[in-house]
Amino acid sequence: MRILIDMDEVMADAIQQFLDWYERDFGTRYTKADLHGARLRDIVPEKHRDAVAKYPHQKGFFKDLPLIAHSREVIKELNDQHEVYIASAAMEFEYSLPEKYEWLDKNFPFIHWKRRIFCGDKSVLHADVLIDDHDFNLSVFRGKPVIFSAPHNMEITKYERLHAWPDARAMFNITG
Amino acid sequence: MRILIDMDEVMADAIQQFLDWYERDFGTRYTKADLHGARLRDIVPEKHRDAVAKYPHQKGFFKDLPLIAHSREVIKELNDQHEVYIASAAMEFEYSLPEKYEWLDKNFPFIHWKRRIFCGDKSVLHADVLIDDHDFNLSVFRGKPVIFSAPHNMEITKYERLHAWPDARAMFNITG
Repeated sequence: MRILIDMDEVMADAIQQFLDWYERDFGTRYTKADLHGARLRDIVPEKHRDAVAKYPHQKGFFKDLPLIAHSREVIKELNDQHEVYIASAAMEFEYSLPEKYEWLDKNFPFIHWKRRIFCGDKSVLHADVLIDDHDFNLSVFRGKPVIFSAPHNMEITKYERLHAWPDARAMFNITG
Repeated sequence: MRILIDMDEVMADAIQQFLDWYERDFGTRYTKADLHGARLRDIVPEKHRDAVAKYPHQKGFFKDLPLIAHSREVIKELNDQHEVYIASAAMEFEYSLPEKYEWLDKNFPFIHWKRRIFCGDKSVLHADVLIDDHDFNLSVFRGKPVIFSAPHNMEITKYERLHAWPDARAMFNITG
């Protein structure tokens, strides 16, 4: 089975970086619990919205993102038994390209360059499954969409849901 | 119609860069005519082969590539009447990612980031047509493959062939 896996909020914890940078710049610490069904830019004071929206367009934002829990070991197991591709809508953020590439080299060295995709619109991808946190990616995908739980998407009910990486073992029949 | 267009040897003249860098490093000027059915690394003295193979892995190689003749104006016309995506197997060359992105911004600013794809293996792409110079990309593509003439592929007869960009107007029914 060919499985596409999104990066941000699925493998890499970009929300953590938003919270960290916001605290650095404006002194207030929001938490993931504050974000239920929303993005950080939607809950900060209006005068800070533009600054927050620009964070992922800045150099360094994607460089040292923490791992989503258990992503490395479970994706390694998936990759051993399925055809796993990483598919990130990275093109919106020009400076993210080398940072995301190096991040994969460091954290997922077993994902060969042939299995890495940086794109804009995921409707152009052909695979059996897409695991992603965004409705706008899942809704245009031609295969089976699987939503990966993230603070901003907890209200969405129209896709099969992966709450956390360990649950992928049962979903994709990973044998130990 | 959704049309994928490869970059190197289709939009960007990477062969010219190989010939230029080889002359810079080893003093001999090869020409495109010398390359009929071969790559530069296949015709240089054996002791220079590794150096030539490493050129595209070096910073700067993809930065200022000249345009393939008429690519800009014809791709602009195609883009006005079809759904054009740029699909480059850039992942093999880590440093090429920002260089290729900036090259597109400079030379093809009308190609929105949503329509740009950097990948490894083109079997993962879904579209009606792929215009590419390499058999290994065309042979795994699920839609209609169209080979774009390049010195190294002139012997291949199994695909419909685009000899030069102006011929694309008739192939894709571009109306002026």
